[in-house]
Amino acid sequence: MDTISVNIPGAPYSIFVSGEDAAWADPLASIVPERHQIVLTSRRVARNVWPRFKKACDRSGVRIQTFLMDDGEPHKNLANVAKGYRALLRLKADRSTCLVILGGGVLGDLGGFIAATYLRGIPFVQVPTTLVAQVDSSIGGKVGVDLPEGKNLVGAFVQPRAVLSHVPFLQTLSRRDLIGGLGEVIKYGMIQDPSLIPLIRQRRDGILDGDPEALYPLVRRSSEIKAEVVSQDEKESGLRMILNFGHTFGHAIEKLTRYRKYHHGEAVAMGMMAAVKVSERLGLCRKEDRDMLRDVLRSVGLPVEVPGFSRSNWIRALAVDKKSRGGKIRFVVLRSPGTVEVRPLTPADLVKCL
Amino acid sequence: MDTISVNIPGAPYSIFVSGEDAAWADPLASIVPERHQIVLTSRRVARNVWPRFKKACDRSGVRIQTFLMDDGEPHKNLANVAKGYRALLRLKADRSTCLVILGGGVLGDLGGFIAATYLRGIPFVQVPTTLVAQVDSSIGGKVGVDLPEGKNLVGAFVQPRAVLSHVPFLQTLSRRDLIGGLGEVIKYGMIQDPSLIPLIRQRRDGILDGDPEALYPLVRRSSEIKAEVVSQDEKESGLRMILNFGHTFGHAIEKLTRYRKYHHGEAVAMGMMAAVKVSERLGLCRKEDRDMLRDVLRSVGLPVEVPGFSRSNWIRALAVDKKSRGGKIRFVVLRSPGTVEVRPLTPADLVKCL
Repeated sequence: MDTISVNIPGAPYSIFVSGEDAAWADPLASIVPERHQIVLTSRRVARNVWPRFKKACDRSGVRIQTFLMDDGEPHKNLANVAKGYRALLRLKADRSTCLVILGGGVLGDLGGFIAATYLRGIPFVQVPTTLVAQVDSSIGGKVGVDLPEGKNLVGAFVQPRAVLSHVPFLQTLSRRDLIGGLGEVIKYGMIQDPSLIPLIRQRRDGILDGDPEALYPLVRRSSEIKAEVVSQDEKESGLRMILNFGHTFGHAIEKLTRYRKYHHGEAVAMGMMAAVKVSERLGLCRKEDRDMLRDVLRSVGLPVEVPGFSRSNWIRALAVDKKSRGGKIRFVVLRSPGTVEVRPLTPADLVKCL
Repeated sequence: MDTISVNIPGAPYSIFVSGEDAAWADPLASIVPERHQIVLTSRRVARNVWPRFKKACDRSGVRIQTFLMDDGEPHKNLANVAKGYRALLRLKADRSTCLVILGGGVLGDLGGFIAATYLRGIPFVQVPTTLVAQVDSSIGGKVGVDLPEGKNLVGAFVQPRAVLSHVPFLQTLSRRDLIGGLGEVIKYGMIQDPSLIPLIRQRRDGILDGDPEALYPLVRRSSEIKAEVVSQDEKESGLRMILNFGHTFGHAIEKLTRYRKYHHGEAVAMGMMAAVKVSERLGLCRKEDRDMLRDVLRSVGLPVEVPGFSRSNWIRALAVDKKSRGGKIRFVVLRSPGTVEVRPLTPADLVKCL
C-alpha cells in the first residue's frame, strides 16, 4: 500500500493506493473511528465489488449501512441529489455520519455533492472503483452535478476525509471503461510526466486486461501528480487549470452527443487531439507532439478523430464553460510533452483552429 | 457608517452598518471592482427598496443586472435553487460575476446557496433588508434551503464577500417583521450582552415605528456579537452553537405549524421561553431570569406561551435537528442573562421539562 498526501490547507488527507492487500480497508476504521458509516453505491458497482468490499470492511471492523443510487452520467443531476438527501434522512444520518462512496466518477461527484451539502456538510470518503475515478475524479474535492445546460455546472470544492484506491477493483471493469480511464492517464503524461507514455505502451496488454500489477504504477503516479497540483491550487485559480487539458473540447463533445455516445475518457482523448491541434496552429508545439499523442491514444484504442460538428454547434457548446471569464475560455495549450500553459481564447478562436 | 470585521480564517470580510448616508453602497464598488454584478431580489423587496437601492448603486458607479425570485419560507427549496441556476445561466454569469442578494433571510439563505454552488461557487454580497437578516442570517455564511422533512437541512458554510446593512431599509418593514427581528436581538441579550434588554425597553416605541436611529445601535451591537462568535467558530463545532439558543424549540414550532403560522422570530421567542423553562427545571437558572425574558418579549409584542403540541409531535419535530449527534441534541441552556451553555439532551428529556 502506498500513501500519498494531499496537502490542501485546512483539509489535508491521504490517498491510499492498494494492490492485493487484505488490510486495504483499514484506513476506513482508523481515519473515521467509531463513526456511523453509510455506504453509497450503485447496483452495478455492488454486483461487481460488493463481496470484496464487505469482506475488507468486516476484516477492518467497520460496520456499515448501505443505500443504492443509479450511476451513469444521465443520473448525475439535481433530482438524484434530492433522492440522496431523503435516503440519508431515512438512515438518520447526522453530522457524526461518514458517507463512504463506493463507485466510479459519477457516483463520486454526485455522492460528494450530497455529503458536502447535507446538513451543510458531513464527512465523506471516496472508494473509487473505476480507473478514471482512481486517477482523477476522486482526488481534489471537486464534487457536483450536471444541469441540462452543461456538465458540472453545480457543485462545490469540498475535500474527502480520505481516498481508498484499491487497484484490484479495476479487474471488474469492462475493457472500454479501462480504455476510457487511460485517457486521463495519458493526460498526466502530456501535462506533467512524459515517462507515463512509454510505460503505457510497454505494458499495454496487461493494462487492457485489467491486470492490477500493470495498472498499479499508473494509478500511483497519476494520483501523485493530481495530489501535487490540487495541493497547490485547490480552487482552480491558477495551476489546477492545467488538469483541464483536453477537457474544454472533451466536454463540448460530450454535450453535443448528449453524454451518451462517448465515455468521458474517449471525449477527453478527442479533446486532447483538438487541444494539440489548436496548440500546433498557434505555433506553440510541434507536429511530432501531435503524432506522439495520436499514436499512444490509438495504441490503447482511444478515438483520435475530432468529430465534425458545425461551427455554430461547437461555439454554442464551448461557450458554457465554468472556466470562462468575460467570454474568454482559459484554454490549456501544449508546449511540449509534459509542459502546458493556460491561454485566454474565445470559442471562435478555438473553432477556427480545428 | 460602522465597519465590523468578521475574521473567519481564509475568508475575512466586513459588515458595513449604515444609517442615512448617501454613500452606503460604495463598498459594492470598492470591494468587487470591475465585476459583473447581478442582483437577486424579490418583487416584494423591490417594491419597497428598489428606488433607494438603485440610486445608491448609481451614485457609487455600480452597474447591475437583476433577476427576481419569490421569497417567503415556502419558497426556500431545491426547486427554487434550480430556478436560480437557470437564471444565472441566462444572464451568462461566470466566475467573475458577483451575486448581490437584496432581501430578507429567506432570499439570503437561498441566494447564498445558489451562489455557493453555481459553477462550484461564485462570490456574493448580502444586502439584508429585514431586521432578522441584518442582525443574524446575513452574517456568518450559513446558506441553504429547507427539505420537506425540516428547515435548513441542505446547505453550506460559505462566507459572503461583504454584508451591507443599511438600517433605513427597515422603515419599510411591517410592524410584525420588526417585532420578529427583535426576537433575535433579545437572543443576543440573553446569550451575550444583557445591556441590550434595557436598551430595547427604553427605545421600544421608536424601534417598533422602524425609526433608524432607534434601530441602529441594535443592528450594530447584534452584528458585532454575531461577527465575534462566527469568527471563532465558523462551522459550529463549539461556540457558534450558542447562537441556537431558542432555536431548537423554535424550529420545532415552525415545523409543527408548517412554517406558516409564525414569523421566525416569533417561533424563536417561544423557543427561548421553552429553553429557559428547561434550564430552570434542570436547576441551571432562576425563575427571575425567566420572568425577565418573558417581560421583554411581551413588551415588544412577541408571543411567550409555548404551544401545547402533543408529546409525540414535539419529539418527532425535535428529532430532526442538524445539531443532533447520536440521538442527542446539543441544546443551549441559560445559566444567567448573558451566559449560556451547551448540554446534550434527548428530545424526550426536553419535552419532559415543558
